[in-house]
Amino acid sequence: MAALTALAPRRGADLLTAFDRVRSGSRALAAPLSDADATVQSMPDASPAKWHLAHTTWFFETMVLKPNAPGYRVFDESFNYLFNSYYDSVGERQPRPRRGMITRPHLDRVTEYRAHVDGAVEDLLYGGVEPPVAELIELGLHHEQQHQELLLTDILHLFAQSPLKPAYRDPSPLPVRAATGEAGWVAFDGGIVEIGHDGRGFAYDCEGPRHQALIQPFRLADRCVTNGEWLDFMADGGYRDPLLWLSDGWAQILEHRWSAPLYWEERDGEWWAMTLRGMQPIDRDAPVAHVSYFEADAYAAWAGKRLPTEFEWERAAEGLSKDGNFAGGGLGRLRPRPAGAAGSGLRQMFGDVWEWTRSAFAPYPGFRPAAGAVGEYNGKFMNGQYVLRGGSCATPEGHIRATYRNFFQPDKRWQFSGLRLAEDA
Amino acid sequence: MAALTALAPRRGADLLTAFDRVRSGSRALAAPLSDADATVQSMPDASPAKWHLAHTTWFFETMVLKPNAPGYRVFDESFNYLFNSYYDSVGERQPRPRRGMITRPHLDRVTEYRAHVDGAVEDLLYGGVEPPVAELIELGLHHEQQHQELLLTDILHLFAQSPLKPAYRDPSPLPVRAATGEAGWVAFDGGIVEIGHDGRGFAYDCEGPRHQALIQPFRLADRCVTNGEWLDFMADGGYRDPLLWLSDGWAQILEHRWSAPLYWEERDGEWWAMTLRGMQPIDRDAPVAHVSYFEADAYAAWAGKRLPTEFEWERAAEGLSKDGNFAGGGLGRLRPRPAGAAGSGLRQMFGDVWEWTRSAFAPYPGFRPAAGAVGEYNGKFMNGQYVLRGGSCATPEGHIRATYRNFFQPDKRWQFSGLRLAEDA
Amino acid sequence: MAALTALAPRRGADLLTAFDRVRSGSRALAAPLSDADATVQSMPDASPAKWHLAHTTWFFETMVLKPNAPGYRVFDESFNYLFNSYYDSVGERQPRPRRGMITRPHLDRVTEYRAHVDGAVEDLLYGGVEPPVAELIELGLHHEQQHQELLLTDILHLFAQSPLKPAYRDPSPLPVRAATGEAGWVAFDGGIVEIGHDGRGFAYDCEGPRHQALIQPFRLADRCVTNGEWLDFMADGGYRDPLLWLSDGWAQILEHRWSAPLYWEERDGEWWAMTLRGMQPIDRDAPVAHVSYFEADAYAAWAGKRLPTEFEWERAAEGLSKDGNFAGGGLGRLRPRPAGAAGSGLRQMFGDVWEWTRSAFAPYPGFRPAAGAVGEYNGKFMNGQYVLRGGSCATPEGHIRATYRNFFQPDKRWQFSGLRLAEDA
Amino acid sequence: MAALTALAPRRGADLLTAFDRVRSGSRALAAPLSDADATVQSMPDASPAKWHLAHTTWFFETMVLKPNAPGYRVFDESFNYLFNSYYDSVGERQPRPRRGMITRPHLDRVTEYRAHVDGAVEDLLYGGVEPPVAELIELGLHHEQQHQELLLTDILHLFAQSPLKPAYRDPSPLPVRAATGEAGWVAFDGGIVEIGHDGRGFAYDCEGPRHQALIQPFRLADRCVTNGEWLDFMADGGYRDPLLWLSDGWAQILEHRWSAPLYWEERDGEWWAMTLRGMQPIDRDAPVAHVSYFEADAYAAWAGKRLPTEFEWERAAEGLSKDGNFAGGGLGRLRPRPAGAAGSGLRQMFGDVWEWTRSAFAPYPGFRPAAGAVGEYNGKFMNGQYVLRGGSCATPEGHIRATYRNFFQPDKRWQFSGLRLAEDA
Repeated sequence: MAALTALAPRRGADLLTAFDRVRSGSRALAAPLSDADATVQSMPDASPAKWHLAHTTWFFETMVLKPNAPGYRVFDESFNYLFNSYYDSVGERQPRPRRGMITRPHLDRVTEYRAHVDGAVEDLLYGGVEPPVAELIELGLHHEQQHQELLLTDILHLFAQSPLKPAYRDPSPLPVRAATGEAGWVAFDGGIVEIGHDGRGFAYDCEGPRHQALIQPFRLADRCVTNGEWLDFMADGGYRDPLLWLSDGWAQILEHRWSAPLYWEERDGEWWAMTLRGMQPIDRDAPVAHVSYFEADAYAAWAGKRLPTEFEWERAAEGLSKDGNFAGGGLGRLRPRPAGAAGSGLRQMFGDVWEWTRSAFAPYPGFRPAAGAVGEYNGKFMNGQYVLRGGSCATPEGHIRATYRNFFQPDKRWQFSGLRLAEDA
Repeated sequence: MAALTALAPRRGADLLTAFDRVRSGSRALAAPLSDADATVQSMPDASPAKWHLAHTTWFFETMVLKPNAPGYRVFDESFNYLFNSYYDSVGERQPRPRRGMITRPHLDRVTEYRAHVDGAVEDLLYGGVEPPVAELIELGLHHEQQHQELLLTDILHLFAQSPLKPAYRDPSPLPVRAATGEAGWVAFDGGIVEIGHDGRGFAYDCEGPRHQALIQPFRLADRCVTNGEWLDFMADGGYRDPLLWLSDGWAQILEHRWSAPLYWEERDGEWWAMTLRGMQPIDRDAPVAHVSYFEADAYAAWAGKRLPTEFEWERAAEGLSKDGNFAGGGLGRLRPRPAGAAGSGLRQMFGDVWEWTRSAFAPYPGFRPAAGAVGEYNGKFMNGQYVLRGGSCATPEGHIRATYRNFFQPDKRWQFSGLRLAEDA
Repeated sequence: MAALTALAPRRGADLLTAFDRVRSGSRALAAPLSDADATVQSMPDASPAKWHLAHTTWFFETMVLKPNAPGYRVFDESFNYLFNSYYDSVGERQPRPRRGMITRPHLDRVTEYRAHVDGAVEDLLYGGVEPPVAELIELGLHHEQQHQELLLTDILHLFAQSPLKPAYRDPSPLPVRAATGEAGWVAFDGGIVEIGHDGRGFAYDCEGPRHQALIQPFRLADRCVTNGEWLDFMADGGYRDPLLWLSDGWAQILEHRWSAPLYWEERDGEWWAMTLRGMQPIDRDAPVAHVSYFEADAYAAWAGKRLPTEFEWERAAEGLSKDGNFAGGGLGRLRPRPAGAAGSGLRQMFGDVWEWTRSAFAPYPGFRPAAGAVGEYNGKFMNGQYVLRGGSCATPEGHIRATYRNFFQPDKRWQFSGLRLAEDA
Repeated sequence: MAALTALAPRRGADLLTAFDRVRSGSRALAAPLSDADATVQSMPDASPAKWHLAHTTWFFETMVLKPNAPGYRVFDESFNYLFNSYYDSVGERQPRPRRGMITRPHLDRVTEYRAHVDGAVEDLLYGGVEPPVAELIELGLHHEQQHQELLLTDILHLFAQSPLKPAYRDPSPLPVRAATGEAGWVAFDGGIVEIGHDGRGFAYDCEGPRHQALIQPFRLADRCVTNGEWLDFMADGGYRDPLLWLSDGWAQILEHRWSAPLYWEERDGEWWAMTLRGMQPIDRDAPVAHVSYFEADAYAAWAGKRLPTEFEWERAAEGLSKDGNFAGGGLGRLRPRPAGAAGSGLRQMFGDVWEWTRSAFAPYPGFRPAAGAVGEYNGKFMNGQYVLRGGSCATPEGHIRATYRNFFQPDKRWQFSGLRLAEDA
């Protein structure tokens, strides 16, 4: 997704290093997967791992190499049809819900495709590139990081469909922390704030233009809502009281009989969840994940609070360290972890779980999509989605910003999506 | 919809007059309808006229009479199930998509029900009511006016399904005005503006709290987009270019094969539309109606403009006269009419067509639903809908305010929904 | 349905009498219905009463009057589109699932239509008609009788959707008989039998040609399966054991959660059913009705028996009196009644409930559809349906024959469909 | 499918040979497939190759080894859930439409599973088995051959979904024969015939009991309808004339916009078809394949003929050689081939394409499902399907009989299904 609004000048050598790091990260993510694991599509929202690996490569081939690398030999002409995602301006493509029909090329062949393109991009970088090309490469890397996260969430969804509940990573249970304690509250003044990316470094088009917004005084919980708190909500009949729910959310409840977050399963009175490490007992202190916007909103109503707006969240995140529980190149915990010890400030703003905000994903004042194919990006999804902030345990290390706007439809649950409460001051 | 945030004190006699006017207005609207016309439901979004007539009456019986009129005799116990709309707190109800199965009671019996309840409310008013009861009655009248508009749009939808294309009103063509001319543009400064209802007179809960918002300088077209302009959009391939459309909008195009506004039909090279006055030739100078948000947004992209936000619209509407082409108690033109002569200001802000804004229907800062059944209202619909402003030719005279927020899903087309263009200054 | 294979010569006066009797029978059936009752369509399988009344009239106008009555003035040209059922050769038509959108013409206007056509047909008959025209009129009368039965079953379905459960006829409970006793068995020899209509009197095209078929020795229960026996099946877990069910039937169980016949409802431990006389307690001795083929087949498996073939049924019915519990011109009991006292022979072969056979509805050897529009009839439905025999309490008196083949898909339940058991001898 | 009605005594050594031949045949069929090819499910009707390979093995493990091989060690307990097909009596199972979610076990692991079970069955056979066990093994082999055919048709369907149109076998075009010439007709007398399996050798339960049936004199075309004849049907508007079609068939046409057999594609005015050898030009002289019953029936109506009944077909096939174009252990042509030179008799009765008959799949007189799990077989599918006869180019050599009844729903097209015309004599 997303064209870049601005790019700080970046040296070729740095870009080469970044290129190698990101591209090899995808390889590492795919390492535990068989050809079949990497091919099957478990639902229309998800894509096969093979598709993620090839599509991100297609992006470099199509956007970077074809127009800018004289003499570049296209690896396989058929891949343009197979691995285009949704760029209407680039031509016909495999329909999204049929991506899982592509049993060929084999995963090995996709690996060769990656090597072929990597070599050509590296050659290009060694030779030195003009800023516009460097920008496209940097965009391609951010784009690939997004797909790295999706690869993880999509594999989790696939493995959750299997009665065997296979583990993507070593399934031994992770140590569980001591109790987290009650959430604290951090207060913020109202007033005019600057929102959006300031143009230093990379950002997606939808993060700008930077502009002023007016907010009212508010308070934010100093950590995310935990699994333990969610169990209280469930025990109190949260999934059975229509007055807590948005009308569309209640319709989901009735249709899909939701009674717990996605991947949760009760076994002999204990709650377990399918994770990237197989079936694991629920950790009461860790942030709840895999809840939809509808569930997050109903929880907030039950708690007598509300979700923050994305402006409030961005205001609060300003200047905070972006350290957190991220995927770290595919390694790492791959599950949300309990918040650290309470202090004077906000915890868990970055990493662990994406936090639903109450803000519909909409253009900032003055927003204009970029011209050409790379502009066919975030703008066309500005309908029916809500903004999430802060990244998750499946987000690659470094792929986050205070201004970063992720977005999903309010019924989606397969991402590592959780929530943090807010209230008017 | 909607609890009231505040109500100016209103004398019993005034309220009695208002009650009689609104209630008899509904009767007048139903006059051209047979029992069958008033019973059939043409789609899940629409309700039968009989249901509108009875449900608005049920509201007075349930919210006003039962708790406040000692000795009131319920007309028919079964009506509570039949004519509850969506108040979960009031009990079980006929499922919305099955409202058309209620062939009994007969329309005449509903008319008796109305008379029974009218008498009891009038008795109550003659006896004098406390302000909270007066507020509930006023709310009931506004509620009924909303249903008056829906009765008209729903009957239009029903009659459009019939191969006979019956006319709700005298079908003779209305005189067509001379050409309207190019739209002009009116500029507005940016800055902090006051948004929302100020508490003087009636308003729905979602119109408040009044609060400050920051807007950027902008310009607004001085009239709505016309049918003639829409024909240009169609002729230029507007319905066939995916780059103009939101992704969800393009999916609608592909699924439903939209190629013109709802109710339009080409006959021998000329465009006609089904109206409340039967099939009529398209009037090039009148505002386009029956377009979805998706179409309005695509049109704006095609024109190189955008839709206004609801705050921009409200800012611009402030202080303008609310005269316009309204339903006038069910009488009136019942079709949008061409704008008057251009002048120095905005035309057609009120009446003719509801104007799509780019603002998702969301709570204002500090919004809290009212307690009890009447609070189960606008808040629970704050998802997946866009705000429309200004009222239409089917809106009852007087049932509009600059702060009035109507809302529908972006794919809906059966309301008199049109658009006005905006741009950044 | 169905062209006639042969017609015994019939005098003009007899035909006129028959015409008046059948046509006035439809009027009597419609008498308890309001315009709205007669307009609404409760599901795609059902049609509005108004449609039945008009369509049967359209048949006379289109097939009889237009080609054979010089100077006949078409009542309303638009009716050809509105009231054609499925005759592709006669032109475009209102799509079946949208028949309920036709709120106009009013029921009164349809009554006028009927009078207009009745007058013209009577004039034609007074003048004397050639045998081919007489045959068409006779076909039209049988066609109308079929629609009389459907009018009743469709009204029952509509009224069952209403929470008010209105009664089509006086709802006072009918006297319940003393216990029926165990079913007896009647044995039949095998051998070559003559099947199909012999050409004397009227029959539909699918009842011929008469031909020889070979059957094995078999036994038939001397009465239909009763509600009491069905309650035993339910109590024994009949609806919960997949081994009793056809695979497609079990899929229905899972999808629609069937656990009793259509229209049955448990209230405080007692079973009631919606009937044409409103909600009534289940009569244990009366034949079970409103069961699908899947249910009938599962019941037979549970009972260790099977359903008869249509040839077995026809063999057994040969020569029996056709007296029974029929609709009698719309009057009558309108509910199945318990079998009379057991004797030496078969009881309830005619009337009460249509009896599912295990025979797929297929062409008899040598079957050829008639030429022209009247031939576009039974043949095209010879897929995916099973034959039912014997008529029901909603079938008009006299509209039955031993060779009569009714047919429905195996999941349909809104007809008065029941079963009689068979076994190999 | 199907328990066996009778089994000729068969020596252990012969059974061992048959076992090795069939089991190695499946391995050979899977040889061209990658793990991903073998895992993906292209539609609910189809199953993954891996599933076919494992399910047939599960059958031996569950039905033969567990009850009869003392000390047999189950290979993997989880496989009972994964690879049960539809035996409700054997327990819960992976839902059919989700078979493609099973990316693990890997294809290699399934191969190990096969070897494990093969060894145990061979040990059992070496030790000598009682007739009931021998019968179960023989049933398992016939069951596996059915799945061999499905494996081929399901892979074809999967590969047809891929834009790359991969070839399962060497894609070089096969030599095309000279023109086939007009079909001749072979006449048969009517009378009482013996139908069904006579108990000598293996047969499925649904092929019996053998019984007498009465047929009328008829004629049968001496070859199948060809692609060239089908092109004539298409050119004559066969897919556009509702009068040729069964009502349900016409609904398919409208919904799915069928205008040619499945897998056909027009490219620059020439017709091609996806085959197991990739995209190939249509061979005008070869039998048409991949047509539904609805299409076969419409073609027959267009040609002024009809489809044969299954009794007519069986009568005509009696005593004919069963040589033909079969899959031959997975080798072979894998496409229908033109009929040989016309002679005095019927051609192509066996092999090439399954021939639709007009007979609904129904129990023969006296049919009773076998007791226990193996009896949960053909009987429960006796609804909504038509019988096909004669085997196809994907049927394993030897897996056919004159009495063999295959069956599919009338809208299915992914099998090698074609037709032969019949007429009354």
